[in-house]
Amino acid sequence: MSIESLGEAQQHDLDFQPASQRGWRRRVFDVIFHHEAGAPRLFDIVLIAAILLSVLVVILDSEAELHRDYAPLFYALEWGFTIVFTIEYALRILVVKRPVRYAGSFFGIIDLLSILPTWLSLFIAGSQYLLVVRVLRILRVFRVLKLVRYVDEAGLLLLSLRRSRRKVLVFVFAILNLVVIFGALMYLIEGPENGFTSIPVSMYWAIVTMATVGFGDIAPHTALGQFVTSILILIGYGIIAVPTGIYTAELANTLREKQLDSSRCPSCNVPTPLADATYCHACGALLKEKE
Amino acid sequence: MSIESLGEAQQHDLDFQPASQRGWRRRVFDVIFHHEAGAPRLFDIVLIAAILLSVLVVILDSEAELHRDYAPLFYALEWGFTIVFTIEYALRILVVKRPVRYAGSFFGIIDLLSILPTWLSLFIAGSQYLLVVRVLRILRVFRVLKLVRYVDEAGLLLLSLRRSRRKVLVFVFAILNLVVIFGALMYLIEGPENGFTSIPVSMYWAIVTMATVGFGDIAPHTALGQFVTSILILIGYGIIAVPTGIYTAELANTLREKQLDSSRCPSCNVPTPLADATYCHACGALLKEKE
Amino acid sequence: MSIESLGEAQQHDLDFQPASQRGWRRRVFDVIFHHEAGAPRLFDIVLIAAILLSVLVVILDSEAELHRDYAPLFYALEWGFTIVFTIEYALRILVVKRPVRYAGSFFGIIDLLSILPTWLSLFIAGSQYLLVVRVLRILRVFRVLKLVRYVDEAGLLLLSLRRSRRKVLVFVFAILNLVVIFGALMYLIEGPENGFTSIPVSMYWAIVTMATVGFGDIAPHTALGQFVTSILILIGYGIIAVPTGIYTAELANTLREKQLDSSRCPSCNVPTPLADATYCHACGALLKEKE
Amino acid sequence: MSIESLGEAQQHDLDFQPASQRGWRRRVFDVIFHHEAGAPRLFDIVLIAAILLSVLVVILDSEAELHRDYAPLFYALEWGFTIVFTIEYALRILVVKRPVRYAGSFFGIIDLLSILPTWLSLFIAGSQYLLVVRVLRILRVFRVLKLVRYVDEAGLLLLSLRRSRRKVLVFVFAILNLVVIFGALMYLIEGPENGFTSIPVSMYWAIVTMATVGFGDIAPHTALGQFVTSILILIGYGIIAVPTGIYTAELANTLREKQLDSSRCPSCNVPTPLADATYCHACGALLKEKE
Repeated sequence: MSIESLGEAQQHDLDFQPASQRGWRRRVFDVIFHHEAGAPRLFDIVLIAAILLSVLVVILDSEAELHRDYAPLFYALEWGFTIVFTIEYALRILVVKRPVRYAGSFFGIIDLLSILPTWLSLFIAGSQYLLVVRVLRILRVFRVLKLVRYVDEAGLLLLSLRRSRRKVLVFVFAILNLVVIFGALMYLIEGPENGFTSIPVSMYWAIVTMATVGFGDIAPHTALGQFVTSILILIGYGIIAVPTGIYTAELANTLREKQLDSSRCPSCNVPTPLADATYCHACGALLKEKE
Repeated sequence: MSIESLGEAQQHDLDFQPASQRGWRRRVFDVIFHHEAGAPRLFDIVLIAAILLSVLVVILDSEAELHRDYAPLFYALEWGFTIVFTIEYALRILVVKRPVRYAGSFFGIIDLLSILPTWLSLFIAGSQYLLVVRVLRILRVFRVLKLVRYVDEAGLLLLSLRRSRRKVLVFVFAILNLVVIFGALMYLIEGPENGFTSIPVSMYWAIVTMATVGFGDIAPHTALGQFVTSILILIGYGIIAVPTGIYTAELANTLREKQLDSSRCPSCNVPTPLADATYCHACGALLKEKE
Repeated sequence: MSIESLGEAQQHDLDFQPASQRGWRRRVFDVIFHHEAGAPRLFDIVLIAAILLSVLVVILDSEAELHRDYAPLFYALEWGFTIVFTIEYALRILVVKRPVRYAGSFFGIIDLLSILPTWLSLFIAGSQYLLVVRVLRILRVFRVLKLVRYVDEAGLLLLSLRRSRRKVLVFVFAILNLVVIFGALMYLIEGPENGFTSIPVSMYWAIVTMATVGFGDIAPHTALGQFVTSILILIGYGIIAVPTGIYTAELANTLREKQLDSSRCPSCNVPTPLADATYCHACGALLKEKE
Repeated sequence: MSIESLGEAQQHDLDFQPASQRGWRRRVFDVIFHHEAGAPRLFDIVLIAAILLSVLVVILDSEAELHRDYAPLFYALEWGFTIVFTIEYALRILVVKRPVRYAGSFFGIIDLLSILPTWLSLFIAGSQYLLVVRVLRILRVFRVLKLVRYVDEAGLLLLSLRRSRRKVLVFVFAILNLVVIFGALMYLIEGPENGFTSIPVSMYWAIVTMATVGFGDIAPHTALGQFVTSILILIGYGIIAVPTGIYTAELANTLREKQLDSSRCPSCNVPTPLADATYCHACGALLKEKE
């Protein structure tokens, strides 16, 4: 469920083959795994509505007042959605050519996680709230409803994220070092009587502070602690620029390359970097119709 | 009232036609809808002063002490401004050629919202505070007082925002997914006894935390909750770079294109990207006077 | 005391002419207004030490414990520094050619503000804490101690800030509109019983929230208030990118132009954009010594 | 232990020479200071495991409950690790050619700080928590486990940080000026009764506020204080863009230069900026195999 697997996930439904080329399993496969107009499109829309409704039920059920008044209704709806999704999951396993590959894919796991908590809630109280993971199934939405341009944009963002991955990891590693050292330092300086009850708690506080969240549930009270906190904040303020810088530079690079690729002269294949060029600057071929 | 309609709004007064070409309606139209020196300019300045004063009255009226001492004065002023603005709105409807188009335009709606709350306050207590929406009428200011260059700059910013719109939407969608999942997770881990009274409240907390606002009205108390919070913060810290990166890259593109457009050789129309060039590098024509 | 006047301020000492070309006033002028080695350099260093010490005294004097024990000492030091700085100010007025122009310049005002609070404290208790404004006198430091390269860097930053000025103003205007409208909205929704005691307080809260500071001294308690807050935060999160984008794009432009300017072939004056070029790519002249 | 010395540190182990060319000291030197496969690699992995375990022991020991139950075990482990690391440190001193240069290098100091606190804890209670500085020894990890590409990325980031160093210092200096002035101002306005107990505390609050951390442990209560806070926040919001802009622009420059360097035609040495070029645009030489 990393960022990269999310990126791959968005293209996977069409990668699967039907288990058989004819019969009901083929028809079910077409409806479930395809997205063109007609029955597949209708199935997609019903599925999205069901997912959104089922997540809404879970969220509303957590409100004490609503739970008191409508618990039986929510309970029935939850089981209803779970049974429908369980049947859908079983069908997907049945009609796909390589069920194990599907079950191990990003959406295969999400589909399983979308029904498991209800069954678990028979044994473990509260686990039904994990059903909100169903919301990830909506990612399929991007393929439907002609949102292809959004998929392109998402792909561009993910490509830039993937390219800046190593730099960001180096950066996170540096952050964690600072968190450990400042966490221990503040635990020594402030101590349990000022809320820094242990080094792990101090590390939590250091993360909250460096990321400029600053809940204030724990805050330094001694003069030395406030001085060290100021240092930590100035460091955090200085390095908040780093991931932004990394990502912006990579994104600008990706955009530039994409522009170079997309704007080549169809006649001589020379890149035409000027966005408003009407004729190729090298061979004079017409690049776009005059408006 | 989206960002885009704001952009269009700034150019609209001159798009309207007078209802009649002569008579008092034509004269009123010129005063209200035009902005050149003389009566129209004076009208604009009086209008801006009235708007600012009326918003100030609403703001001051909300102060308990001032309300106690000056309630009748504020009440009178409020009704005074409302009646003046109502007359102005009626005049605009009367003198414009296509009143329905005006009433449905961005400023037409704002003009209506600027008088409605006072009339509503006869029936619904407190609604008069919505009068602050009048402040949006000031956006007209940009056209007056020779602030044209600011309109250009605003247009540049809005163009970049519009270009990065789809990318930002993909990003907001990703945020919302994280908010739902971490909201439910924290509700399960911390529970109502630590302030996470329901999933919607937990989602509110997740937004407050990811955006690094961190009020601290709700904060994790269990060790596991603090660990999950740290993860959430690190993710939020990592992706705060994304919209900045998107917008910066788009703005840099927009600026570059604008520069290419604005710096073409007047003789051979070749772009002259060097900012300090005196002669065109292609045909040798004089680009600017030597200083 | 705007950003721009700060930029100008850093070059001003050398812009002043001595009142007379010989005699003690000329000698004092050279010591005070010049920065070369010898007496002027020594004067600068003593002045910086005096400024830092005097600010430190003000800061330490505000600590209740230190004030209790050392109040007489701090009082004496404060008056000592004030008298020294007053004499220095009087000398500057005396020896400069156009005293009014000096008194009205950035550092002329700062110099006056650095002595005024002590004299005022004879009449108004507490005003001596304003003496910390003396710290601004340190800005002169940049010229001394061969910090010229820092002045260049500061100039580059200020140039970019100046270029992005209009865009940032448009942005601040948009922020203020949002602050007024969301402030009034939250005052209506939450009301005085939840800490939103008036619209000005709500506007303060809206600024604290949009800028992701989030003190938590005021926080929404109703479900609707938390929802509106989430919207406000998402908007704030989205537009935090705008000033960064503006400034980054302008700074990148400024850097590029500076690089183009600074890297011209000394022989044929063609720009040489490749940072590691040894020979001019146009005429083959040697650009830099091989390492 | 500045950022720059961290950068140099990552390349230093191989800079040292053995004290003798043969005998046990040479063999120990090869194991400790080298990183190739076999014994040196095994030593590295064991060392990393020992460092991580020892830091974990320190962190867990700070938890009150765990300390109560396992204090003797943690105590024994701490001394065990300290003795092992002390022996390792002694060996490093013994087998290296210039022990003083090693002891004064970045990792030499870290190695010493990694054992000192335990010995100090015999005299000063609590100092053993400083042992978390051991985590910095992990920085050596980057050389091991074939993480060379990460070292490259880190080098790129550090080069950009180094280039933007002067600009960031100018920026920090500006921040500190604002902190002193707003700190004194808020101390005057709010005073000790609202939590601003002294100017240093107000300066701490100003840093917490400008960096958008906003703990809320101290917050303005007077109307004037809230107004000044709003101004401070808007200023902070505006200048948060500055270090991001600086760093992004420098990083983009560094990336571009690196790309120009890495993509030169092997035949004529002309830079080939088009990422997807197959032939050199100048001499026609084949740049990369067709895919």
